[in-house]
Amino acid sequence: METISTAKAFGGTQGVYRHKSEACQCDMTFAIFLPPQAEQGPVPVLWYLSGLTCTHQNVMDKGEYRRLAAELGLAIICPDTSPRGQDVPDEKDNWQFGQGAGFYLNATQAPFDKHYQMERYISQELPALIEQNFPVDLTRQSIFGHSMGGHGAITLALKNTGRFKSVSAFAPIAQPSTAGWSKPAFEKYLGNDPAQWRAYDSTLLIEDGHRVPELLIDQGTADGFLDDGLRPWLLEEACKKANIPLTLNMREGYDHSYYFISTFMDDHLRWHAKRLFA
Amino acid sequence: METISTAKAFGGTQGVYRHKSEACQCDMTFAIFLPPQAEQGPVPVLWYLSGLTCTHQNVMDKGEYRRLAAELGLAIICPDTSPRGQDVPDEKDNWQFGQGAGFYLNATQAPFDKHYQMERYISQELPALIEQNFPVDLTRQSIFGHSMGGHGAITLALKNTGRFKSVSAFAPIAQPSTAGWSKPAFEKYLGNDPAQWRAYDSTLLIEDGHRVPELLIDQGTADGFLDDGLRPWLLEEACKKANIPLTLNMREGYDHSYYFISTFMDDHLRWHAKRLFA
Repeated sequence: METISTAKAFGGTQGVYRHKSEACQCDMTFAIFLPPQAEQGPVPVLWYLSGLTCTHQNVMDKGEYRRLAAELGLAIICPDTSPRGQDVPDEKDNWQFGQGAGFYLNATQAPFDKHYQMERYISQELPALIEQNFPVDLTRQSIFGHSMGGHGAITLALKNTGRFKSVSAFAPIAQPSTAGWSKPAFEKYLGNDPAQWRAYDSTLLIEDGHRVPELLIDQGTADGFLDDGLRPWLLEEACKKANIPLTLNMREGYDHSYYFISTFMDDHLRWHAKRLFA
Repeated sequence: METISTAKAFGGTQGVYRHKSEACQCDMTFAIFLPPQAEQGPVPVLWYLSGLTCTHQNVMDKGEYRRLAAELGLAIICPDTSPRGQDVPDEKDNWQFGQGAGFYLNATQAPFDKHYQMERYISQELPALIEQNFPVDLTRQSIFGHSMGGHGAITLALKNTGRFKSVSAFAPIAQPSTAGWSKPAFEKYLGNDPAQWRAYDSTLLIEDGHRVPELLIDQGTADGFLDDGLRPWLLEEACKKANIPLTLNMREGYDHSYYFISTFMDDHLRWHAKRLFA
């Protein structure tokens, strides 16, 4: 593992690191913020999964999570959103597929299956690497994310029962296997059989019996992707049927950007901290 | 004036606007955050001047000022750091001169004098434009900035007695007319007579009798520019001789980046709010 940069911030350390990923067969970069409490011993971990087109850096620059994470004593891990590099198959003019659009799934279709193994990377390889290298307590983990990363956070929480103390999302893609901006990616990564897509779809995982204890979602009403791409009402319906307590905050006038995310970042950090320190 | 973008954030609005500048003879872009209180009536204004290489955008993305500015009811204005455009003389490979390095002065030397009129732009043209277009109360203004922008904030406050209720800086260039990374720019913008540089140099303006009521400075001890470029001790000495109360916080382990600035942003916003609402 190679250190790209470290800087003191809010009494803690914002670091960026690169490593050779076995799961993704390429160099992967991630950011981790360690709060000042990490100097005294292992701290709980909150994973943040980013949306389409993002790297680890967008939330690191614009997410405004460090002040409160430092106060609460949370490590914040921000992985990249896909494998990267010249050898990694891509569609350069398509922001909804390929590099920057890994959808937190394990591709089964050539040529994408060699590198696009983001579920395995995020849920297995990266936690092991981080546990080896940083003072974190992985018995206390939570997860959240934005848009494609909200989809990633909810699906990972649904499929790894008990691993995460809590899960939340900003403007998640509620049903990616049927949304216009994600279905084509599912077809290319996973093939044409819709049955294979259910394992990477929050609402369908809930239909299929997967559960989380509760769920927090914030969604802007002025989000340009609301009706076609995000559709939180599908998740609302699925949670209702499955008796999963859902807090869905529709935020008047907010869009899909980090202006929206940063505004409600504190609420989400407190939600997770309450459950991580319970 | 043209609207580039607006987005709701922390109950207020982060906007970016472009206009034809008479002072700089080119299109200029600036950002303004209006807190929710601006819906009820004019709000006080805090100017933030950015450092070398920056545009209006760096602090807008990474400064983390909106949460507390919204709570306190402050408008935050973030101008660009120089004139811009193909017609504006530049040294593309020199980050310490030309576009991105206007030093908040009025150039007197051709060919730079035509466009590089940043003092006039920031202190006259832009305030008038903003007063016409936004619900701000310019009888309550304060100013702060970072590095070159710290120099800009302090010199403007020193030269415009009574205009600003308060002034502060993150890692300001304390004596730009003698610092290695700024003296060559002063020569090119202002000519070879050092007497002409004094009007744009905080410590020398204080030597020459200019005054501010008090001054807040935060400076990281791990700042790579500390010894050669910034030298806050020169300002400390000048303030001491002039009986200007200076609060100089040396911050252990912090560098020159927005990780440092964002960490102490709240302190500075509260400092200014206390004086703006006194």
